[in-house]
Amino acid sequence: MRLLEERILTDGKVRPGGVLKVDGFLNHQMDMDLFQVLAGQWYQAFQNDGVNKILTIEASGIGLACFAGVAFHCPVLFAKKTKTKNIDGSVYTTRVESFTHGNIYDVIVAKEYLRAEDRVLLIDDFLANGAALDGLCDLVRQAGATLVGAGIAVEKCFQPGGERLRAQGLRIESLARIRSMTDEGGIEFEP
Amino acid sequence: MRLLEERILTDGKVRPGGVLKVDGFLNHQMDMDLFQVLAGQWYQAFQNDGVNKILTIEASGIGLACFAGVAFHCPVLFAKKTKTKNIDGSVYTTRVESFTHGNIYDVIVAKEYLRAEDRVLLIDDFLANGAALDGLCDLVRQAGATLVGAGIAVEKCFQPGGERLRAQGLRIESLARIRSMTDEGGIEFEP
Repeated sequence: MRLLEERILTDGKVRPGGVLKVDGFLNHQMDMDLFQVLAGQWYQAFQNDGVNKILTIEASGIGLACFAGVAFHCPVLFAKKTKTKNIDGSVYTTRVESFTHGNIYDVIVAKEYLRAEDRVLLIDDFLANGAALDGLCDLVRQAGATLVGAGIAVEKCFQPGGERLRAQGLRIESLARIRSMTDEGGIEFEP
Repeated sequence: MRLLEERILTDGKVRPGGVLKVDGFLNHQMDMDLFQVLAGQWYQAFQNDGVNKILTIEASGIGLACFAGVAFHCPVLFAKKTKTKNIDGSVYTTRVESFTHGNIYDVIVAKEYLRAEDRVLLIDDFLANGAALDGLCDLVRQAGATLVGAGIAVEKCFQPGGERLRAQGLRIESLARIRSMTDEGGIEFEP
């Protein structure tokens, strides 16, 4: 998707080690106009799939997921990274290993908000190794819900998550697909 | 605000120890229609104050803040709870003690996204002891930006945060103001 690719080229910064910094518009400071356009793209892709729930993971997926929730006019659920006092015992739990943070954590969703009759679209800002998506897929599976697919803003196609998850049958709509990045700051997109 | 109060009475649950569970519509599963109405209320309250940046804190403030960002047509910035690989060194840091989670953590914003010329509206889901708002106020102060006020969804008026922060001169617009809760599940709102 050209708008997002151009924005990445303009405002994104490549850091050594395959890190793409897009915190000026995507995952720290967030551009609401851009988010609305991205959500519209996911709506185009999945509008006929009966999506009735958006599922994301805290924190940087939440903003994008909200705009998807408006587009599909359905509730948005975000998986939480720790068990808080505000959540009762009845939760689905899965384990996620974060590439960005270099750690492992549990994420939970309350069982009452993820039901067997739900048709779930996953939303996240990045797809790289696919650990977050793995976790979200697992939560949907535990609930016995239907996994419609995943809407991703930026996919790093040189990391294995996208290929692996598509091979497992997950439909993924990534709006900017990065083929390669160089430590000198170069970014090449998939055609 | 009646719509939110009624929703709290219908779908909220009171847990012992002054915990109000609203995770069916506010801070786990999120109701986008409701969020749009809440943001509209904050817009009414602060529309003439030149707000050009929304600041919130991860994770449960992000969804509400995004709708405020649409209403005010400005970028939304969320303070992050840990320093990630994706953020460079140049950040403002403050310390927050979480009532909900019972712990203390640092939050950061990148200096380049919070500037002296910004007129900042804070957004969060809850105001109780005011620790999160304290932290956000401190970040705005460090940046030399103008603090316009705070838009809160649910204020627990029987906890000291709101009174203390208003006494410091912060303008706070809370959309549901809870006067008292009982362990039996009763909720009384401020008139």
